[in-house]
Amino acid sequence: MGGEFDFIHNIKTKYGLTKVGDDCAVLPKDAETDLLITADLLVEDVDFRLEWTMPELLGHKALAVSLSDIAAMGGEPESGLLSIGVPEKIWNSGFLPRFYDGWYTLAKRFGVELVGGDVSRTPDRLVIDSIVLGTVEKGSAVFRTGASPGDVIFVTGKLGGAAGGLRLLESGRADASGAESNGLLRRQLKPEPKVLLGRLLREDGLASSMIDISDGLSSDLRHICEASLVGARIDASCIPVEVDLADNFDHGTALELSLNGGEDFELLFTVPREKLSLLRNGEFSEIGVVTENAGNIELFLDGKLIELPAGGYRHF
Amino acid sequence: MGGEFDFIHNIKTKYGLTKVGDDCAVLPKDAETDLLITADLLVEDVDFRLEWTMPELLGHKALAVSLSDIAAMGGEPESGLLSIGVPEKIWNSGFLPRFYDGWYTLAKRFGVELVGGDVSRTPDRLVIDSIVLGTVEKGSAVFRTGASPGDVIFVTGKLGGAAGGLRLLESGRADASGAESNGLLRRQLKPEPKVLLGRLLREDGLASSMIDISDGLSSDLRHICEASLVGARIDASCIPVEVDLADNFDHGTALELSLNGGEDFELLFTVPREKLSLLRNGEFSEIGVVTENAGNIELFLDGKLIELPAGGYRHF
Repeated sequence: MGGEFDFIHNIKTKYGLTKVGDDCAVLPKDAETDLLITADLLVEDVDFRLEWTMPELLGHKALAVSLSDIAAMGGEPESGLLSIGVPEKIWNSGFLPRFYDGWYTLAKRFGVELVGGDVSRTPDRLVIDSIVLGTVEKGSAVFRTGASPGDVIFVTGKLGGAAGGLRLLESGRADASGAESNGLLRRQLKPEPKVLLGRLLREDGLASSMIDISDGLSSDLRHICEASLVGARIDASCIPVEVDLADNFDHGTALELSLNGGEDFELLFTVPREKLSLLRNGEFSEIGVVTENAGNIELFLDGKLIELPAGGYRHF
Repeated sequence: MGGEFDFIHNIKTKYGLTKVGDDCAVLPKDAETDLLITADLLVEDVDFRLEWTMPELLGHKALAVSLSDIAAMGGEPESGLLSIGVPEKIWNSGFLPRFYDGWYTLAKRFGVELVGGDVSRTPDRLVIDSIVLGTVEKGSAVFRTGASPGDVIFVTGKLGGAAGGLRLLESGRADASGAESNGLLRRQLKPEPKVLLGRLLREDGLASSMIDISDGLSSDLRHICEASLVGARIDASCIPVEVDLADNFDHGTALELSLNGGEDFELLFTVPREKLSLLRNGEFSEIGVVTENAGNIELFLDGKLIELPAGGYRHF
């Protein structure tokens, strides 16, 4: 069996599914509004490690990753559900109240209400499915499919920080106690979903396509290109590398983390040239252009144009 | 830490959650309609065993348990999401296409569209979160909270079959190959959600409260009584014991399975006396009456009135 993206593509084709494959499913709600829904499964020892985080941080992140999917459609989050499978030792450890506190503190900031979910036991590892519902003005959700040749490619914020934070944790150079003080750890353990920016980019049809950077820039740019049947050319010197990476990594590693590191939860989006003047000055970096060369993603690096493979995270 | 129902109660209280704790969350949709949403987490070796089922049956059951939650509100299912965590050996085994076929075959019967979800890897065990969205006429969803003293208690169908099927699997007296031919195995492995009956019972305000029997009659009746701040008195001789149980179990065991066995996915509901004449003849059994005696659940058995403890399934 192929990878997870092939699998999802095959299921879509086999059953003629039209709403699967973007950051959120978009469903009709009422005359003025569409409903957004997203689910994110987080599995212990695959998507997180308990020894590298804290219950409050994990609760925060479980919600943040789903809010980021709502952001990537230009939507407004409203409700959340948490399905949580808990091994007995965690059930009895005082973990869960702290986990829910982390979830709830972030939820409150975004006006998200916990409306449901499920609790099950697991034999040995924690598993969390975070579900968030949101809304967006009818017909205005920003999909991955809308990029056209000539559109300019942007990202919000800085890239590579979350992957840098993970490297620090993996190598034992830092632990979760630094999550508030260390910029890289904060990016990895307490990501900030770009909900307000996503909404701004949807208004006036500014973004023609959008995705959040969860798998990594190179992978997520490929998701947009495949969905939009276009290519892309980006310039390595324009990629907004997280400045804190310089404290711990050489320049080449920092660039590699910015290209292929996942979980920054910044927004990657395209803007038609005629709309560029509407783009308010803000936390956006112009990194390249959409091309007609479907599926071909090129990187301009050190004076040379090279093919950029999808180097980001995949489960399979 | 207490049990799972205490935990959910505590979270509700701590954060002032008003939509948590019924079979589905009910959210406003449009002027005529409310939105229903439910999530059910199924964990390998806790909620199912791969050696006791088949991929198609597991796909069917993952959806059926969520459809049953929609049924218990009197709603109409519309969309589904599947979050699935898969160990590598299952990813490579051909399991997933068969699982989705089972899901999809049932979904098609109920007009449910797969709109999203997530795929993750797990270290060793399969985990499935089944999410279903539905709709219900505005303000008409049937909650667990609406039972009043004097209301008559009914169940749909027959009880104990699913638990009987589980006993056959546990003891090695049967395997999943009998799922179509053996009535008890069918109840356990391929449950039929009572969506049409649930809708019928909602119409004309027939049911004052409703729940699906997933944990077991004694537990689920307690859920209704606790939510409605009432008590109940039921008559053992009126409980519709699954007839097929007689082939494999003595009378006492069959009654015990009907009282405490979970996963029958029948509907347990209460009807105000003045509405009884509207209850069309059908697959309903009158089993008792709602009392003022809050939290007190009594069973009339062999000429004696005894207290009925919640004997159904709990994860913790």
